[in-house]
Amino acid sequence: MWLSVEKLVNEIKQDKPDPAAAKALQEGLGGQFGEMRTLMQYQFQNFNFRGDAKPFRDVVRAVGTEEIGHVELISTTINMLLDGSSTSSSTKAVDPDSLPLADALDGNGNIHHFLVAAQSSRPVDAAGNPWSALYVYDSGNLVLNLFYNLMLEATGRLQKCRLYEMSKNKTFRSTVSYLIVRDLAHEKVFAKALEVLGVNWGKVLPVPKVDTDKMPEVKALEKKNLHNQQWTFSKESQLGQIFKGESPFGDGEIETMDGLPDGFDVPVLPDREEEFAPGLDKDLKSKAQEIAGITRQQRAAQ
Amino acid sequence: MWLSVEKLVNEIKQDKPDPAAAKALQEGLGGQFGEMRTLMQYQFQNFNFRGDAKPFRDVVRAVGTEEIGHVELISTTINMLLDGSSTSSSTKAVDPDSLPLADALDGNGNIHHFLVAAQSSRPVDAAGNPWSALYVYDSGNLVLNLFYNLMLEATGRLQKCRLYEMSKNKTFRSTVSYLIVRDLAHEKVFAKALEVLGVNWGKVLPVPKVDTDKMPEVKALEKKNLHNQQWTFSKESQLGQIFKGESPFGDGEIETMDGLPDGFDVPVLPDREEEFAPGLDKDLKSKAQEIAGITRQQRAAQ
Amino acid sequence: MWLSVEKLVNEIKQDKPDPAAAKALQEGLGGQFGEMRTLMQYQFQNFNFRGDAKPFRDVVRAVGTEEIGHVELISTTINMLLDGSSTSSSTKAVDPDSLPLADALDGNGNIHHFLVAAQSSRPVDAAGNPWSALYVYDSGNLVLNLFYNLMLEATGRLQKCRLYEMSKNKTFRSTVSYLIVRDLAHEKVFAKALEVLGVNWGKVLPVPKVDTDKMPEVKALEKKNLHNQQWTFSKESQLGQIFKGESPFGDGEIETMDGLPDGFDVPVLPDREEEFAPGLDKDLKSKAQEIAGITRQQRAAQ
Amino acid sequence: MWLSVEKLVNEIKQDKPDPAAAKALQEGLGGQFGEMRTLMQYQFQNFNFRGDAKPFRDVVRAVGTEEIGHVELISTTINMLLDGSSTSSSTKAVDPDSLPLADALDGNGNIHHFLVAAQSSRPVDAAGNPWSALYVYDSGNLVLNLFYNLMLEATGRLQKCRLYEMSKNKTFRSTVSYLIVRDLAHEKVFAKALEVLGVNWGKVLPVPKVDTDKMPEVKALEKKNLHNQQWTFSKESQLGQIFKGESPFGDGEIETMDGLPDGFDVPVLPDREEEFAPGLDKDLKSKAQEIAGITRQQRAAQ
Amino acid sequence: MWLSVEKLVNEIKQDKPDPAAAKALQEGLGGQFGEMRTLMQYQFQNFNFRGDAKPFRDVVRAVGTEEIGHVELISTTINMLLDGSSTSSSTKAVDPDSLPLADALDGNGNIHHFLVAAQSSRPVDAAGNPWSALYVYDSGNLVLNLFYNLMLEATGRLQKCRLYEMSKNKTFRSTVSYLIVRDLAHEKVFAKALEVLGVNWGKVLPVPKVDTDKMPEVKALEKKNLHNQQWTFSKESQLGQIFKGESPFGDGEIETMDGLPDGFDVPVLPDREEEFAPGLDKDLKSKAQEIAGITRQQRAAQ
Amino acid sequence: MWLSVEKLVNEIKQDKPDPAAAKALQEGLGGQFGEMRTLMQYQFQNFNFRGDAKPFRDVVRAVGTEEIGHVELISTTINMLLDGSSTSSSTKAVDPDSLPLADALDGNGNIHHFLVAAQSSRPVDAAGNPWSALYVYDSGNLVLNLFYNLMLEATGRLQKCRLYEMSKNKTFRSTVSYLIVRDLAHEKVFAKALEVLGVNWGKVLPVPKVDTDKMPEVKALEKKNLHNQQWTFSKESQLGQIFKGESPFGDGEIETMDGLPDGFDVPVLPDREEEFAPGLDKDLKSKAQEIAGITRQQRAAQ
Repeated sequence: MWLSVEKLVNEIKQDKPDPAAAKALQEGLGGQFGEMRTLMQYQFQNFNFRGDAKPFRDVVRAVGTEEIGHVELISTTINMLLDGSSTSSSTKAVDPDSLPLADALDGNGNIHHFLVAAQSSRPVDAAGNPWSALYVYDSGNLVLNLFYNLMLEATGRLQKCRLYEMSKNKTFRSTVSYLIVRDLAHEKVFAKALEVLGVNWGKVLPVPKVDTDKMPEVKALEKKNLHNQQWTFSKESQLGQIFKGESPFGDGEIETMDGLPDGFDVPVLPDREEEFAPGLDKDLKSKAQEIAGITRQQRAAQ
Repeated sequence: MWLSVEKLVNEIKQDKPDPAAAKALQEGLGGQFGEMRTLMQYQFQNFNFRGDAKPFRDVVRAVGTEEIGHVELISTTINMLLDGSSTSSSTKAVDPDSLPLADALDGNGNIHHFLVAAQSSRPVDAAGNPWSALYVYDSGNLVLNLFYNLMLEATGRLQKCRLYEMSKNKTFRSTVSYLIVRDLAHEKVFAKALEVLGVNWGKVLPVPKVDTDKMPEVKALEKKNLHNQQWTFSKESQLGQIFKGESPFGDGEIETMDGLPDGFDVPVLPDREEEFAPGLDKDLKSKAQEIAGITRQQRAAQ
Repeated sequence: MWLSVEKLVNEIKQDKPDPAAAKALQEGLGGQFGEMRTLMQYQFQNFNFRGDAKPFRDVVRAVGTEEIGHVELISTTINMLLDGSSTSSSTKAVDPDSLPLADALDGNGNIHHFLVAAQSSRPVDAAGNPWSALYVYDSGNLVLNLFYNLMLEATGRLQKCRLYEMSKNKTFRSTVSYLIVRDLAHEKVFAKALEVLGVNWGKVLPVPKVDTDKMPEVKALEKKNLHNQQWTFSKESQLGQIFKGESPFGDGEIETMDGLPDGFDVPVLPDREEEFAPGLDKDLKSKAQEIAGITRQQRAAQ
Repeated sequence: MWLSVEKLVNEIKQDKPDPAAAKALQEGLGGQFGEMRTLMQYQFQNFNFRGDAKPFRDVVRAVGTEEIGHVELISTTINMLLDGSSTSSSTKAVDPDSLPLADALDGNGNIHHFLVAAQSSRPVDAAGNPWSALYVYDSGNLVLNLFYNLMLEATGRLQKCRLYEMSKNKTFRSTVSYLIVRDLAHEKVFAKALEVLGVNWGKVLPVPKVDTDKMPEVKALEKKNLHNQQWTFSKESQLGQIFKGESPFGDGEIETMDGLPDGFDVPVLPDREEEFAPGLDKDLKSKAQEIAGITRQQRAAQ
Repeated sequence: MWLSVEKLVNEIKQDKPDPAAAKALQEGLGGQFGEMRTLMQYQFQNFNFRGDAKPFRDVVRAVGTEEIGHVELISTTINMLLDGSSTSSSTKAVDPDSLPLADALDGNGNIHHFLVAAQSSRPVDAAGNPWSALYVYDSGNLVLNLFYNLMLEATGRLQKCRLYEMSKNKTFRSTVSYLIVRDLAHEKVFAKALEVLGVNWGKVLPVPKVDTDKMPEVKALEKKNLHNQQWTFSKESQLGQIFKGESPFGDGEIETMDGLPDGFDVPVLPDREEEFAPGLDKDLKSKAQEIAGITRQQRAAQ
Repeated sequence: MWLSVEKLVNEIKQDKPDPAAAKALQEGLGGQFGEMRTLMQYQFQNFNFRGDAKPFRDVVRAVGTEEIGHVELISTTINMLLDGSSTSSSTKAVDPDSLPLADALDGNGNIHHFLVAAQSSRPVDAAGNPWSALYVYDSGNLVLNLFYNLMLEATGRLQKCRLYEMSKNKTFRSTVSYLIVRDLAHEKVFAKALEVLGVNWGKVLPVPKVDTDKMPEVKALEKKNLHNQQWTFSKESQLGQIFKGESPFGDGEIETMDGLPDGFDVPVLPDREEEFAPGLDKDLKSKAQEIAGITRQQRAAQ
């Protein structure tokens, strides 16, 4: 079982809507190396874990639980990149007669963001392909699973480093940078688990090797040591028996953190009439607000 | 964010392995109307929720968080139906020279359970098709989303009622029966949310209409009132502003329960040498056990 | 069996080619909530119908037969939006040396419209994903099927209302508006079938709630009462035993119309040399025309 | 537009249920060379037809309209092979305590026939893969389209000849044999259309070459000349300008038949309680029957 | 078995990077009628060949082996169209502060070329759909296989003729033109194999009929007679017993060439730091170069 | 370019047909970790290789070329397991009236082997899913690619070890055992390439760890040292600069072999009338044999 904690794991900066950036960021959500995949892969490895070695199971359980929050974080970021894009283009500012959703036809974005969803995220990759459970790897073999997970985190981080170079939008960059840091921490988790079984990584890891001096947002997060810490996202975890001591990449001390971080408020998306979302007419809206305990006065002010 | 609570939401009864039942039960896990889908559908509706009406968002958040635990429950049940099936057939009892995995070729099971996974669950349906994010529905429109979710729960329950009639295996039945009851509770959650917006369901719901006198395991769970309760799986939920009062199906009082149930221990699956899972040789196993804090004495006894 | 009637169900207005609009309109043809899906879903429910209640079977039979004509209508509309787009851009008017199909590389359109088809429709959605039979829902349960169909029509209509806001092209709008009206009629068909079984919809339907004062093309069609009528597309239908009396949405009288509407001529698409379509050389063309009974004189004039 | 004629194009013989045969026959419905594909391929070629040569367009229009009826025929045949299979096995005759749907776990059938559908057909192939619009071929080039269609019909017929050899069940055989004959007629339609453009087929066609002396059901249908006739399924067709004279395979005279054949009654499938299909309780059933004009007396007798 | 010969089958001209052209050319690589498909289709027909008629088997073996080299050629061409595109746009020339991969967000290209691959080819089509083995046709029937292969080559060539009209980029055109010529030769191979079995093609072939006077690059290759020759790509082939004499299209003499052509050097792609490809840091690069026998002096000069 | 050498890389033993084993072996051909995937993955990494380090490119080129021969080997093995299965079952020996293809309905096999192919191999996995290019991994990053390839070979070998335990059929075992040995060699190739870049594997590799004393067929092949050798499958390879010296797993000396092994004759599959494969009638067969240079006398004797 899991308990919902109504907080985001990181803060998302405000910036202008950017549907092209939203489309690109979908790779991190529904792509072959995105967060839906890490979530499902680690949970299947958790459910199907064989052998009485709880610390190794807790490796996939901890990271796999963090990933639910990453799915939430990246989905919310995409929403912030999309919301209001239908009314923000310069054309519209000039021409009051313009069509509310005309920008949806622009090929730089994903038309489904406007047509199927209501300016919000979709379980697809940056090219529009739906997420598939074919991606999920669980061989039952502990060493192979750890190898695959290490490679998976490194590939995810590689793609996020490429994303970083695609847009300077602050909403986009705040989440991309956070995931670059966390994917590095996850690389360390799996690399360490293999190290304690006997592998010496030499200098081939981490992948990719990046100069964070050129990535100020990433640098700032590393200063908080976020690339060396792993929360357990549980109260009974034995992760700390593995994730401790020197980093497997020889870049400092790693540490296991009990429980979960404080987090940040989950934003509330406004109504979008042009999307019929949530699409309540005056009558239904009034009922919904009554249930939500919003008083008549507040309602009148809206 | 979410917190992992290392408990199963329901108890799974012990019975003989049954790969054919395991294959069938995959529909409830990775099928179009299975738990991976409800989990993802409700979470996307949660992340993408528009409008300032928290109780309605908490509807999808609560049920969507319960579903993570359902994915865990059904995956674990499949594992129990598969584990040991390679060594349990009557032929093998007679013929010590028999092949460890010969039964994998039997067409009644899913060969991938043995060949790809190591006698454990897969993210596929009963016909072997991988789960696809094409299943996830989120229109942005509140009324449509609620309608779809209601229909989704009813279809899931319909399929579980059909599963119930396919096998008497107790491991299988304990989880199928639990989900029949919970799907009914979820039907009520979404039906109630539409009722408070103005729909009167008459007598068409619930679907399917079943005579639980012929389903003793289901009956026993309903006696605990599990078909009328919904936990919030959160500490800040406003679900109770919707889910209260009379059942939308006119069959009693419904109630919102704060937090989550006590739960049951998560079982530990044993090593399976014939599957090379976890596949550690003596040397690696010793290291793993050391890390897990298992003493040399215990290890010698294994 | 079915009989082909060589007419379109609605008239398609002439306007300039617009490949971006054509790409968007594919959602209505090959999308998850498009016409290929309604056609197949209703026909499977028709073929697999259980129980001796012909009027309910005739509900899916009538709408399912209308949908074949909608597939034809929307496919033909896409063709009109594509045909000639290769030679119509302003660049080409200026530069006689320009490439005939250079515009196919423009990301606002679907390159397959030019490269795979010959400036004509494809069985895919607006994002280019092929139609999949995974979309087809038939549970065997009458109430669930009706619920799903109602939700399906409402979602289709929701997407068409969004499409309406994406382009003012008259070819595009004439078909989109017609389908907004017909999807509303279909919503009523399924809502009424549930109403006669006991549901009272209150004010939650229809979805979406739109102000047709802002949609003049839609308004014009509603003046013809097209949103309250359902043809049987058959000579033996008992649809009228269900679809009669007050609209389930309280907006007037609904009526069953026997047979099918008069319809409009199916347009003939011209040759496109740059697409090698139909690609007949002089010799083969002559033979084809002879078979078609086109005289030498007419041929010489072409 | 199309008009529904409530008749089947051929009669389906009664025999025992046979889920394994039903599973195999799905290839003819939802397989890559099955009837859903021919239907969609010919209709897309019809909608997208270029050039003023109506007889060639009427080739795909006529056969493409016949195929809607073939989808109906084969779907209905599968239903007859499935219906009642849950209660017909010998075990059940002996053991009154047996499970209603236990046979669904038998690997020779398709479990989705019982679990997803209610002992009825699905839009999938014999291996359970969903039909995909990737199958649809329309190049815009007339000669290529005709070649592909010829090859498509021949491959469909090849597969049906293989199906013929898989089961002697009369329900199965009556439809398989009918389609062997009709696919041959369709091969002739496309071969003739290419012949009039200049190809001489020599002796390579038809494919496959079969000895119908060993296929009595096929022989009987050929005696009715069904392998040499093509209905127009329309009242305005110019098909006859192409499909006339000698068979392109040198085996007799071919002829175009105006309109459509007489047809046979569409069977009504009974309720299946164990499938909750249609799943109406006493109260709802009574309402449905009232609408269907079934009198109280008749109802009491059921 | 196969032996790698480290040469390209044709020379690729140098020109500017062009991601839109690269995206389009993917159809020829991973499209339904692209080279991955011809490779796999012919090899499966080769492996599964029935009957003691080696010359017919050698038809699919020879062309199927040539296709491996075509996959290499077209993949390399796409790489040359992509490589350096990240640093070549005019914006970047002006703004030194610009993002290295900003152009990846441009909808005219395929974002996966930059985000998943490192400015290199992908096994997908021009619309981004992954190649699927559903495309592979092998019926076991010799005549049908030959028909399908003929149609496959003609469709491939049709698409390449359309591609020719989409861009004048020389890198793009050199490969597209070469494939137009080779696909014609392959059409002849399969048409001839059917001709020797008795078909007379009249004047319907080849498809498409193109005026190569308007395609100078194609004309130049035809002057070398490349459209009438087929190498065996083997030393034991009996292809020559079929592919000899008059062209089946009546346009000259065809000839079988033993072995394989001389070929051209395979280009070496440079490092791309912005893609972290190959991503070696100074230390690892030095090791790699040492192994490659690159001396310290050379390395210092890089 | 590649040159076809008409030999199999290993000998396939004769044994009885076994469709269930054939179905299982498909995983090694068209599965996610089968030979079609290794072939395509390594070739894409070869084509897209960046950087001037030929020995590393030759790693993927050599193994990627060997894999074409593995696709051939495993496809041919499946054919031998299928061929004649339609006429070999014990029922048929007893009942001359039995149906030629009745066994195709047996759920232990893959019905497509009989219905779509003609008792021959298909590009699908053991569960019948078509091979997908989604499987192909190429990140552009050298270290990641090598890691993935190592994990891919280890997973392939794990699955083949599981297959080994599923059947004792000699045809099946001869190929499965060969691939267990070769996959181990390939594991060493990629592990060595990472070792020379600095990784020390300790004792975690190889995966899986198997006791070949219990696998006599594997043992026999290892005695020939096949698990320590890698052919270049090229005449210009620099593979030997990497693959030499001690095994990365500390189990002996590894060696690079120039060119390719001698190989074994490719078997010729007989006609299967019940499959209409190749399906030539007397007349066409005579023509085909004439072309093949088979004399009238030989033909008469057949």
